[in-house]
Amino acid sequence: MTTYLEANKQRFLDELFDLLRIPSVSADSKFKGDVRRAAEFVRDKLTAAGLDKAQLYDTPGHPVVYAEKIVDPARPTVLVYGHYDVQPADPYELWNTPPFEPTIRNERIYARGACDDKGQFYMHIKAIEAMLATDGLPCNVKVMIEGEEEVGSDHLGTFVVEHRDMLQADVILISDTSIISNETPSLETGLRGLSYVEVQVTGANRDLHSGVYGGGVANPINVLCEMIASLHDEQGRITIPGFYDNVTELSDEERAELAKAPFDLEEYKRDLAINDVMGETGYSTNERTSIRPTLDVNGIWGGYIGEGAKTVLPSVASAKISMRLVPDQTPEEITERFTKHFVSIAPAGVTVQVKPHHGGMPYVTPVDSVEFEAASKAFEDAWGKKPVPTRGGGSIPITALFEKELGVKSILMGFGLDSDALHSPNESYGLFNFYKGIETIPYFYKHYAALKQ
Amino acid sequence: MTTYLEANKQRFLDELFDLLRIPSVSADSKFKGDVRRAAEFVRDKLTAAGLDKAQLYDTPGHPVVYAEKIVDPARPTVLVYGHYDVQPADPYELWNTPPFEPTIRNERIYARGACDDKGQFYMHIKAIEAMLATDGLPCNVKVMIEGEEEVGSDHLGTFVVEHRDMLQADVILISDTSIISNETPSLETGLRGLSYVEVQVTGANRDLHSGVYGGGVANPINVLCEMIASLHDEQGRITIPGFYDNVTELSDEERAELAKAPFDLEEYKRDLAINDVMGETGYSTNERTSIRPTLDVNGIWGGYIGEGAKTVLPSVASAKISMRLVPDQTPEEITERFTKHFVSIAPAGVTVQVKPHHGGMPYVTPVDSVEFEAASKAFEDAWGKKPVPTRGGGSIPITALFEKELGVKSILMGFGLDSDALHSPNESYGLFNFYKGIETIPYFYKHYAALKQ
Repeated sequence: MTTYLEANKQRFLDELFDLLRIPSVSADSKFKGDVRRAAEFVRDKLTAAGLDKAQLYDTPGHPVVYAEKIVDPARPTVLVYGHYDVQPADPYELWNTPPFEPTIRNERIYARGACDDKGQFYMHIKAIEAMLATDGLPCNVKVMIEGEEEVGSDHLGTFVVEHRDMLQADVILISDTSIISNETPSLETGLRGLSYVEVQVTGANRDLHSGVYGGGVANPINVLCEMIASLHDEQGRITIPGFYDNVTELSDEERAELAKAPFDLEEYKRDLAINDVMGETGYSTNERTSIRPTLDVNGIWGGYIGEGAKTVLPSVASAKISMRLVPDQTPEEITERFTKHFVSIAPAGVTVQVKPHHGGMPYVTPVDSVEFEAASKAFEDAWGKKPVPTRGGGSIPITALFEKELGVKSILMGFGLDSDALHSPNESYGLFNFYKGIETIPYFYKHYAALKQ
Repeated sequence: MTTYLEANKQRFLDELFDLLRIPSVSADSKFKGDVRRAAEFVRDKLTAAGLDKAQLYDTPGHPVVYAEKIVDPARPTVLVYGHYDVQPADPYELWNTPPFEPTIRNERIYARGACDDKGQFYMHIKAIEAMLATDGLPCNVKVMIEGEEEVGSDHLGTFVVEHRDMLQADVILISDTSIISNETPSLETGLRGLSYVEVQVTGANRDLHSGVYGGGVANPINVLCEMIASLHDEQGRITIPGFYDNVTELSDEERAELAKAPFDLEEYKRDLAINDVMGETGYSTNERTSIRPTLDVNGIWGGYIGEGAKTVLPSVASAKISMRLVPDQTPEEITERFTKHFVSIAPAGVTVQVKPHHGGMPYVTPVDSVEFEAASKAFEDAWGKKPVPTRGGGSIPITALFEKELGVKSILMGFGLDSDALHSPNESYGLFNFYKGIETIPYFYKHYAALKQ
């Protein structure tokens, strides 16, 4: 195995580069053809790796790629999930090298999707290839790579329901999260959910001259700012009525356990070049970004944003707002509470529209399962140390769906780093992490097969 | 005169259309060539109208066009001021017909600059042409049309100082304001000043994943919204310390006088399609938009504003903010107070930059002067009724400069309507107003010459 991995190192990387060159941005319809091209690329590589039945499944959105290798129906089955779509790459001007021309600098691969999630799911294809080419697969494997994760996996729910038998498995294995550092591997035991909405505040029926009308009528931008500002109180808590009703508060013991994960606040601030952190009173930075729900504006626009000055009161101002959820909040509940509240705080003189984008359930992985134990042992074998259990702040909405529809838990065996700049310009993925991931994955199959016997 | 105006009606309009077809957007450097082309067009038309010495005066920005006709040094001299530059036309998609292809609908000229200020200053060139072609000019006339009014007339101050002798006059006549309605002509007796700034809030050194970092660090958009929201209190008053220190409060008598101007609140709301007005407690809509200072966001942007959803905490959020000023506020004072305050309210975790764009002094015209009387009589002759004195909300910063540098007062004899959609999509100017303006202007010269004898 080690020999095979070593001998094929460069080819693995070249293939990943080919995949990274395809701008499979699912959010933007102008990349629709590229998204499909990425799916076809993945299909072909699954076949090349030795899997069977590799094919595209069309959905009303982007296609799902699926393949499998059933070595023995008596053995346990691992379902690998990943996504070949990527976040939009803009602002392009902030990239040091073009987002879809992967480049190596300082032992890191720079490209949109390098870590999220092309670099991470591709490790699985290569690990499976290596197992099949050497000692064989200790478990059956099914691979499902979707193309709509970055836009809320809108059609995967239907796909999973319609292919429940095909997807039946004992565990779902996902590499789409981070470890604490290359010195401190970790395994995520929970993820936040998501509610994403777009809001629009409309004032007059046309843009107005700010001299003629300024001071006399509602300015949609000022109103939007006031409405957004009012969504947090001075303690950094979200003011939407009932927002915290279903939040599971952790016990002091659980919080103490999570606090054991190494964290250096000064290093954190230095990395981001900020002079202070900010967040909900009474919680640590790690807690604020994992076990606490949040509300952030992800985009705002209105009025004149070109060069120079224009003295206009715009007719409309808009914002994209997302809320990260924790157990037992649900996106449906929170989207409804947000909408009701946001509409209710609109002052006279404007009208407000709230359009839900997508949502995802929060998720918690049990740490006392054989699946978690297999993942933990895999890290021990490959990294020489036990991974630290952590709670993640991101969202992989599909984990809750898998549990509901397939009755199967997911193991979040990610190999990225928080500093990989996911969703940002200059996203990257360490060469160390790429290769170490390929090395770690087969150990999971080995231990999982053994533990399930 | 009447015969001449009637006979040349269509040509006057054709010429204005040619001028309106030139996209002389001063704020956007990509239109630099078009701005110059507009200046050359104006110069040629001044010559064609019979004025002397028509030429372009280059500035570090856009050129000033000047021409004159000295009929008798013993007679009084009128200096006509206007601007051939226009506001940016975006958002283009909201125009029913293209902004730089003038179109007549419902007896109105639709085009960017139709009213502000091409349609209005061009009336003067045609009125002068008509006087010269018929009864002759009762006064000397000087015409100065600039190209930077929409971006703060940055270089006109220097031009005026450097050409003080050339520009010497007894009164300045400006058509760049509105009347109450075509049934109720009015003359503006004051204008608001302007302070325009651009602000930028920066958080981390890069865009961040809102799942990984959300809740733990300052989000520049949320912070910007909170900072903007805090600039008004619940009474709609501006919270910048000292902001109202130099505001001249009008006496009850003065307010009662202004309140006599016809105003129909229901019609105002219907025209804008809003269910209520909004503004500073204790003042009427007309007062809020004329004798009271304001603060409005004219543009805001940050984060992901494309199609779909992106879960990003942007590194930077920005806004363009303008304040309308009233006597005796000055743009220097207010820009300084704004900057100091805005920087002071920035929370830890972000940095704030404030960049001043441009400013202008508020202005008040004396109503007991022969200049005002001549303008009032001109309206009476042409419209059959006395114009109502009003206070305007817009800004023509140059009026204060003219008073300071030339020692000359300005008469604001505008013929537009508030519903002309200045600075907005579908700006228009009534054919009635264009022709009535050309008819009114010669009466001003007649009365002014007579009153000054």
